Amino acid sequence: MKKTILITAGDPLGIGPEITIKALQNPHVRSVCKAVIIGEPSTLKRAGFTPHLAELIPLETTQTFPATPQPNQEAGRISFQAVKLGIKWALEKNLPLVTAPINKQSWTLAGVPFTGHTELLRAATQADGLMMFVSGNLRCALVTEHFAISDLSRILTKNLIYTRAKSFYLALQQLGFKKPKMAVCALNPHASDNGKFGTEEKNRIIPAVRTLQKEGILLEGPFPCDSLWAAHVHGKYDGILCMYHDQALLPLKLAARKPIVHLTAGLPFLRTSPTHGTAFDIAGKNQADPSSMVQAVLQALNT
Amino acid sequence: MKKTILITAGDPLGIGPEITIKALQNPHVRSVCKAVIIGEPSTLKRAGFTPHLAELIPLETTQTFPATPQPNQEAGRISFQAVKLGIKWALEKNLPLVTAPINKQSWTLAGVPFTGHTELLRAATQADGLMMFVSGNLRCALVTEHFAISDLSRILTKNLIYTRAKSFYLALQQLGFKKPKMAVCALNPHASDNGKFGTEEKNRIIPAVRTLQKEGILLEGPFPCDSLWAAHVHGKYDGILCMYHDQALLPLKLAARKPIVHLTAGLPFLRTSPTHGTAFDIAGKNQADPSSMVQAVLQALNT
Repeated sequence: MKKTILITAGDPLGIGPEITIKALQNPHVRSVCKAVIIGEPSTLKRAGFTPHLAELIPLETTQTFPATPQPNQEAGRISFQAVKLGIKWALEKNLPLVTAPINKQSWTLAGVPFTGHTELLRAATQADGLMMFVSGNLRCALVTEHFAISDLSRILTKNLIYTRAKSFYLALQQLGFKKPKMAVCALNPHASDNGKFGTEEKNRIIPAVRTLQKEGILLEGPFPCDSLWAAHVHGKYDGILCMYHDQALLPLKLAARKPIVHLTAGLPFLRTSPTHGTAFDIAGKNQADPSSMVQAVLQALNT
Repeated sequence: MKKTILITAGDPLGIGPEITIKALQNPHVRSVCKAVIIGEPSTLKRAGFTPHLAELIPLETTQTFPATPQPNQEAGRISFQAVKLGIKWALEKNLPLVTAPINKQSWTLAGVPFTGHTELLRAATQADGLMMFVSGNLRCALVTEHFAISDLSRILTKNLIYTRAKSFYLALQQLGFKKPKMAVCALNPHASDNGKFGTEEKNRIIPAVRTLQKEGILLEGPFPCDSLWAAHVHGKYDGILCMYHDQALLPLKLAARKPIVHLTAGLPFLRTSPTHGTAFDIAGKNQADPSSMVQAVLQALNT
């Protein structure tokens, strides 16, 4: 039986409608899912929407959009409403949610009090989402997200590392790994070389790892991030937990051979999204590459 | 005319003698350089040394080495003497120096008051060496080396960034780039997103970059390190300056398609080395891959 999936089409002036439709035109995607799109109908129709492709929950506009794609108040209002509705339905019907890109400036113009999807998701679900990325066999999660490097030592408590690792473990199980094999990156170079440069390994990461190991979770480390990523690329682990943003995104972008999908795990439902933005420069020109959106849809179905 | 090059053979019990000889047996290496090896003669002869291959400055041992490769006081004494002599000659005769791997534990057993090559090089030359790595068209240098992440904000002054960038510029010129095109990594994720997470970009990195630009140096940034490394892999810059250890080594090890060579720039002479260690587990078994040593020799000749 085909699984039902919710897709918010993102900013109507960006490439969201186009990659949504292109992804649903993909024969493999059509064969495995029944999609419900939430979005602005005129831009979706221009991108090729037909009722055969998906069910549409229309969010109509009474205004005329500008001819050139740009940050716009009405586009912000509609894309915000779509995500709010998507979250409501995902919660009520326990469905996976795929979100096409929104524009943060448009949300600001529309007076939306959230800077992006993740903040809204956390507020609406009251859950502490885990930021995760998947590209083929590469899977990583972040203990901390958008913070200054100088704040990391303060933020990285044993408890936070424990909580995030546990969420990651559950997320990998949701992705089909019965007994996921995980490893943790060190914060400091050479994993601090036995405390020569940094104490976070000894005082925070190792205690968190030991507690999780006692619970029967297959978790190794902390290892120096350069050797751990090399091991992950060679398939040694099902997923690796990174201490900070660039420790995940920098290697991932260099090592990825398949489109990178962004997942928010730890919510009551699974949410995925492509990793690119609204790409106003190519929007409406039928030039957008839907491969990251295709992967986002397939990944959301893997629950 | 062939250039003369000094090679210290490293720890006699490690793979140093083997990769030194194998590198000098490489036809291309032989065609471009005249090598002077400083090392322990019995292990070099066992690895295939002949007087046709290179001149040998022998550092004899009166002791018997253990049958199994391991940290050893006498091996530490000899490999330390070799590097000391190598630095002395490199200074006196202005010759490039290639160093095969030493064992830090053996140096400790021999009572050597330095933890490794770089520390000894800095002490012996009174110069502030710049740690640099090259692999094919990838070239990067480090502003800070082995420090805790929590120390970075304190250490990364405008002056240090300026000094390291200047050394990097001169090193790239030595490598043949008349007017090197360089870029600088940000410290914080998304280059701090206009100060939202971190002030080091605004208060330290940007002022250093501006000063260097005023001096006519082609230097761009700071850019988020994930996008900058992707640009570097695609050939946009001749070299990139990284703020910390893992910002250089993590992406380099994932993106490198050619053996990585470690360079110490900013000394009165150029010093290069392979990036691996003594590899006691395969030493004496004729299994060592000399490709990083070959590249280290060729890179040292490029001055």
